[in-house]
Order: sequence, then C-alpha cells, then structure tokens
Amino acid sequence: MPFRWDYRQHVSLAWFVLKWLAICLPVGIFVGSGVAFFLWSLHVVTLTQWDHPWLLYLLPVAGIASGLMYHYLGPEAEGGNNLIMEQIHEPGGGVPLKMAPLVLIGTLITHLFGGSAGREGTAVQMGGSLAGGLGRLLKLSPDEMRILLSAGVAAGFGAVFGTPLTGAIFAVEVIAIGRMSYRAIIPCLMASVIGDQVNTAWGIGHTHYHIAFEAAITSNMSAVSLDWALTAKVAIAAIFFGLASVLFAELTHGVSWTAKRLIPIPWLRPAVGGCVVIALVWILGTRDYLGLGVSSHPPEAERICIESCFYAGGAGWLSWWWKLLFTAVTVGSGFKGGEVTPLFFIGAALGSVLGVAMGAPVDLMAGLGFVAVFAGATNTPLACTIMAIELFGPGHGTLLSSGLVVYAAVACFLSYFLSGSSSIYHAQKRDEEPREETQTPETD
Amino acid sequence: MPFRWDYRQHVSLAWFVLKWLAICLPVGIFVGSGVAFFLWSLHVVTLTQWDHPWLLYLLPVAGIASGLMYHYLGPEAEGGNNLIMEQIHEPGGGVPLKMAPLVLIGTLITHLFGGSAGREGTAVQMGGSLAGGLGRLLKLSPDEMRILLSAGVAAGFGAVFGTPLTGAIFAVEVIAIGRMSYRAIIPCLMASVIGDQVNTAWGIGHTHYHIAFEAAITSNMSAVSLDWALTAKVAIAAIFFGLASVLFAELTHGVSWTAKRLIPIPWLRPAVGGCVVIALVWILGTRDYLGLGVSSHPPEAERICIESCFYAGGAGWLSWWWKLLFTAVTVGSGFKGGEVTPLFFIGAALGSVLGVAMGAPVDLMAGLGFVAVFAGATNTPLACTIMAIELFGPGHGTLLSSGLVVYAAVACFLSYFLSGSSSIYHAQKRDEEPREETQTPETD
Repeated sequence: MPFRWDYRQHVSLAWFVLKWLAICLPVGIFVGSGVAFFLWSLHVVTLTQWDHPWLLYLLPVAGIASGLMYHYLGPEAEGGNNLIMEQIHEPGGGVPLKMAPLVLIGTLITHLFGGSAGREGTAVQMGGSLAGGLGRLLKLSPDEMRILLSAGVAAGFGAVFGTPLTGAIFAVEVIAIGRMSYRAIIPCLMASVIGDQVNTAWGIGHTHYHIAFEAAITSNMSAVSLDWALTAKVAIAAIFFGLASVLFAELTHGVSWTAKRLIPIPWLRPAVGGCVVIALVWILGTRDYLGLGVSSHPPEAERICIESCFYAGGAGWLSWWWKLLFTAVTVGSGFKGGEVTPLFFIGAALGSVLGVAMGAPVDLMAGLGFVAVFAGATNTPLACTIMAIELFGPGHGTLLSSGLVVYAAVACFLSYFLSGSSSIYHAQKRDEEPREETQTPETD
Repeated sequence: MPFRWDYRQHVSLAWFVLKWLAICLPVGIFVGSGVAFFLWSLHVVTLTQWDHPWLLYLLPVAGIASGLMYHYLGPEAEGGNNLIMEQIHEPGGGVPLKMAPLVLIGTLITHLFGGSAGREGTAVQMGGSLAGGLGRLLKLSPDEMRILLSAGVAAGFGAVFGTPLTGAIFAVEVIAIGRMSYRAIIPCLMASVIGDQVNTAWGIGHTHYHIAFEAAITSNMSAVSLDWALTAKVAIAAIFFGLASVLFAELTHGVSWTAKRLIPIPWLRPAVGGCVVIALVWILGTRDYLGLGVSSHPPEAERICIESCFYAGGAGWLSWWWKLLFTAVTVGSGFKGGEVTPLFFIGAALGSVLGVAMGAPVDLMAGLGFVAVFAGATNTPLACTIMAIELFGPGHGTLLSSGLVVYAAVACFLSYFLSGSSSIYHAQKRDEEPREETQTPETD
C-alpha cells in the first residue's frame, strides 16, 4: 500500500483511553484514599506498639483473632495477592470486596502487636478488591475485569510507596516471570498516578531515603561517570541479593508448609507463629526486627531499621538474616501484611554490610539492596530499577550522573536472574520459554 | 515441598552470566569503538557539509554512488535494521559482516551531501553485524545467535546516544509490539554498558539537552509534585506526538513504495530523492532540515535544530513537518542513515510549538516530544521513558522532583498506544493478542 492511514483505528484507541480514564478515576480516588487511611492508621498503630511494648505478648492472641476473623468472615479472601493474580490470569469467582477491610484490619493487628510484616500486600489487596467491586458494579466483561484488577494493583502499589511509574510497571510485570505484556499498561499508569496523587492530597508523605554518594569525577554534571570497580562490586552484591531473595521466598513457603502440616486448625497457626516471634525477641534481646522497620523510635534510639542501614554501622552483620527470619515466621504462619517492606529492610541491611565489607559506598549499596532483593523475590526487575530512580533520584542531581540508573539495573536484573524462578507469589506465571534452552534447566 | 533449594539452578544461571560476559565483552569493545569512530567521522562530515554548502548539489550523484555500492557490494545487507530483527526472530542466513562498513560509508555519504537522516540505524546495524560476525566465529547455536544479535543492537544503541539502560531495553522491546521478553536482557545490559563506556573512553561525548523546568512548589526536594493541568497538557500533546509518528512511518513507507513503483532501477531512486531534497531547500529557502539537525553551525546562527527547540521560538509552527518531509524523502528514497535523530527533531520541534500554544514549559515539552514521537514510531515506550531519564535527568536534581518520570511515561505510553501498530520497522512482530478484544480492531 502506498500510504495507509485508518483514522478509525486512532478513534477506537482514543475511545479506549477515555473509557479507561473514566473507570480509573474512581479506582484511583478510592484506592488512593483507602491507602491514605491505611498508611495513617499504620502509623498510629506503629507508634502505639512502640509506646506499649507489652503489646507484643498478646501477639499469639492477636494471631488467633486475625485467624478467626478470616476463618469466619472471609475464607474466600484468604488467597490475598495470589487470588488477585489468578483472577487476572483467568477471571472466575472474582476478588471479593470484603478483602479490603479484612486485609486492612488483619495488617493493623499484625503491626499493633509487633509482627514483622509489610504493607504493600495490604495496599495491593485493597486495590484489587476495590477495583473488583467496581468492575462488578459496572458489569465489565471478563477481559475488561483483568485490566481493571491490574489497574487496582497499580493504584495500590503506586500510592503506598509514592512511586507511580513503579506501581504501573509492577502491576503488569508481576503477572508473569520473564516477559511483560503492555495490554493493561495505560489503565495501570492512569490508576497509579491518580492513586498516588490522591494519597498525597490526603497529606500522607513517604519516607525519603537519602543517598549522598557521588562519583569522584563528575566534571560534567550531565555526563554519567561509571566506575568499573564499583560496577563489579554491585554485581557481586547482586549475587547475595538474589540468594537472599530465594532464601526469603523459600523459607516463607517452608514455614507456611510446615505450619499447615503440624497445625491442622488454621487459626491456631498464627498463634504459634506469634509465640516463635516472642521467643526470637527474647533470644536476640532486641525488638529491632518487629513491625515495619522503616524508622526507629525515637529517631535517636539508634535501633536497626531501614533508615539506619543507609549509614555505615547502621546494620549488624546478620541483621538481614534476622529480619528475614522474623518475617518468614510472621507471614508464613498466617499473619496479614505484605512482604515488600521487610524485603526492603533485608536488602538494605545486606547492602549496608556488603558495602562495608567491600569498601563500597554504604548508602548506595543499601539503596541497591533495598530494590534488588525485592526484584529477586517478586521477579520484577524493571519495576525495581524504576523504583530506585523514583525513590532515590528526586532532589539528588548528581546521583543520576554518578551512575545510579546503571547500578540499579545491574543489581536488580542480576538479582532477578540469579534467583531463578523462586517467587513469593505462587500464582505468578512461569515463562514458558526457558531462559536459554541449552543452559538453564527449568526448575519448579 | 517444605523448602526447596536447588543450588545447581543458581550455578547454571551464574554460568550463563559469566559465559555471556565473556561474549559481550568483545561485542561491547568492538561495537563501542566502531560507534566512536562513526560518531567522530559523522562530526567531521557534518562540519564539512556546513563549510561547503555546495556539496548539497552533489546529493543526487552521491545517492547513485551509495545505491551502486549496495547494489554491487552488498545487496544482502540492504535489509538493514529489519534484517537484524528477522534474524533475531528466526535465525537463518545471518547478518553479513560487510553490513558494518557499508552502512557506515553509506551514512557518511548521506550526511556529507546534506541528506536528512539519523545515526541510530547505522549504530544498530554496525552492532548487529559485528555481533553476527563474532557469533559465526564462535560457532554459536541459533538460539545463542538471537541473544547475541540483540546484544549487538543494545551495544550500538547504548553507545550512540550514551544511554546504556535505554539501549538494553530498546533491544528487547523493539523486537515485538506490545510485549517484551527478558530472555536476552542480561547480555543486552552487559553489551550496552560496555559499549557506552568504551565509546566514552574514546573521548566521544554526547549532546546534553538542558531542561530548566522546575515545578513551582518543590518545598520538599525529594517529594514529587505533579501538576494536573500540566499532566493534561502532556496527554494532549501525546496525541499529536503519536499522530506525527504515524505520519512519519507511513510517509516514509509511502515514499519508498512509490519510488519502487516509479523507478525500476534501484540505484537511481536516491538520485531522484536527492533532487527532491534540493528542490525542497530551494522552495523553503532554508538548509535547517538537512543533515542530523542536532545543533546549528555556528551555534549563534539561530538556525532551527534540536537544541533550539528547547527554547521558546526555537522552532517554527511547521518545523516538525518539514523535518518529517525531508527525512521521509531522504530515507524513503534509499539513502542510508537512521530515523531516530530526525524523530527526535520532529518531536522536539512539535513539542516546542505545542508548549508555546498551550502555555506549557517549552523545554519540558520539547524534551517529551523528543522521546515520545520516537516511542510512537518504534513502539518502544519503555525504552523512551527511560531515555528521558537517562538524557535529561543527570545533573538536574529538581527535574525528577518536578515529575519528569510521570510526564515522560504519560507522553511515551500514550503516543505509543494512540499511534496504533504503525512502525518504521516492518519486521517488528505484531502483538498476537489484540489490545482489547472488544474495542480495538487489529489493523495491518
């Protein structure tokens, strides 16, 4: 054909965009507001836990309450993140609306009584559940429902961490391992940006992690100066980040599997998990690994937390392992919450000590571990690379000229690749095509 | 299984990484050096063209020379970028080693005599051709050859624009429309980073585009402040960016199709194209749309070029269209070179006037057009979003806090989506799954 231009194609695509903008606007507003409420209440609950340390001793009882709540009120919401992913793969029973309040309350219980967990699972499930409810209200087709659920996930993720592009990429990248489809990307981007902005409009801020690292020679601010020795150190660290992510995913699965075999009554499992957490606190003599672990209270308390990992000496040699163990026990035994903030902690603590050990900038290595262990555990290296840019880039003009983009990509992609097909989400689709036919055995 | 950990999987994955590092090291060094030589000679050739304007009148003769060179010396290299993509999809005859010198000389001829073309096609073809030669030397399997060709493309793209992550993502994203596989990403990332650094080590710099735009309220440097009105303006501009990319792709195809029908002798086609370019210069009375168009000579000449588009008044209302027409005639009639730098020009010029028209920051809109028209014409929105970060981010701490990441993503993804399946590469695989079954008719 000499020249082809079918204007109807563009009209139809524009219609798709407008239709989804109309749908994603309420999704973003509801999910952004829900996440704002969640983050606010999580803050209150965390402060309460800090001010009343004795609450920890009620963790087993809280576990029973949380377990009973799900057992009687919403067993169909128990699937959590995996249920949402399954519904995106194969729309069926849908994501129940009650998942949103259940996971919200369940997560607040976990944090009030000192369980070690995160918040992204909660935000993602609130997003998926609210989006699913809206989809049923609008009588969307199964195909549209898949897109809408992805948009809900994007809105939840984007809002909870204040990283809109990361939220959108995460939602389409997490569905399958080793490949990515752009089908839902426009709705995801709209929902994520709106969700994040609505959350901000409610006055909810996010922690800012400061990386002071600057390449020695940045003669021209706009030119990127890479340091080969540092690149090699980042690659070596990525091996450890990848292995830590496997250990986390498999230990959490292992705890869950063992708990299911040894404790036939579902709502008793978190009670036992709570007892183990208390025992760990006694044995180690520290409460640093309880709760979210983003900051310490009071800030001058010099506890180990994500923020402290950005300074040399801010993490012990085995801090990453203890946070990993606390979280595997908490989440694996059935407490609600997410895994991503603990993964940030594990990665930042591991990066921190690897930085000290290898003579690399501690704050940079902590930041890279922060995103790279998460990349390995969820198989979302691209979202994590972009997260490094969205979290650490703003306000630090020399960080990008010092090579942050390349270091983050090397850390995240190598960690993802070397961790193999391990994942904290069992509903993630495996790549059908092996990564390299001759070299890489597909394991499952 | 309670706890599964197959260490052999990690050993095998680590072996894959080390093997490909060993292969990508020479690829990065050869391609990075080749691109350095190409960029240096392109600079010399562009200066010569500027100093000897009469060279333009030899453009038709140069076209014959270029056409005859390919006709007699390398008809099998004529396929260019499409041939490399076909060989990645379905390894067969391979990418001939002589493609590298042929496209290098062909591109220098185009630019010496004032044709309007780019440079990324040249770098990508040099990368693919050198990688292909190395692959045959190493007797790689067809499957490994596909990965190696992608790595060559990544090295060429990363080196020619100084954007290593963009190069790696482009190489895996450009293969198919609407989806992306991570199979080759690790080798691509290694080749692209090495290629870029080798190019820099040869002393070859890249143009820095400065966006001074700052969001009004950046009280907290690390918090991102989005402006809803500006976001809406970016989205409206993205419609124009997308349509411009379709116009470019289809007009170039149309010129090529018409030339093939009207002029049966292949090497005569560029001669006619050269005459049309000369006629266009006469009619318009300007030489601004000749050559690469990155900067003007002397810099104070106030010619329209990519750099001038970053300032209000630096582009005329129809500058984007004239550059589009000059390039469609040059490239469509068979001159060698790339399309991407002209796409940057078209996008920056269009963004510049749209910024003036809508009362939006001109430099930001020029920068967004720069990447978004390219995203629409090549269906690589993710690579283009990352390119905005890698090109405009370094050294500008407040640009990320002013929302660059979101604006770039909105511009690139909307332009990509609204432009439909149009592409400057006919070998790009179409998404088998329609974007939305009920709404979007698949057109081809």
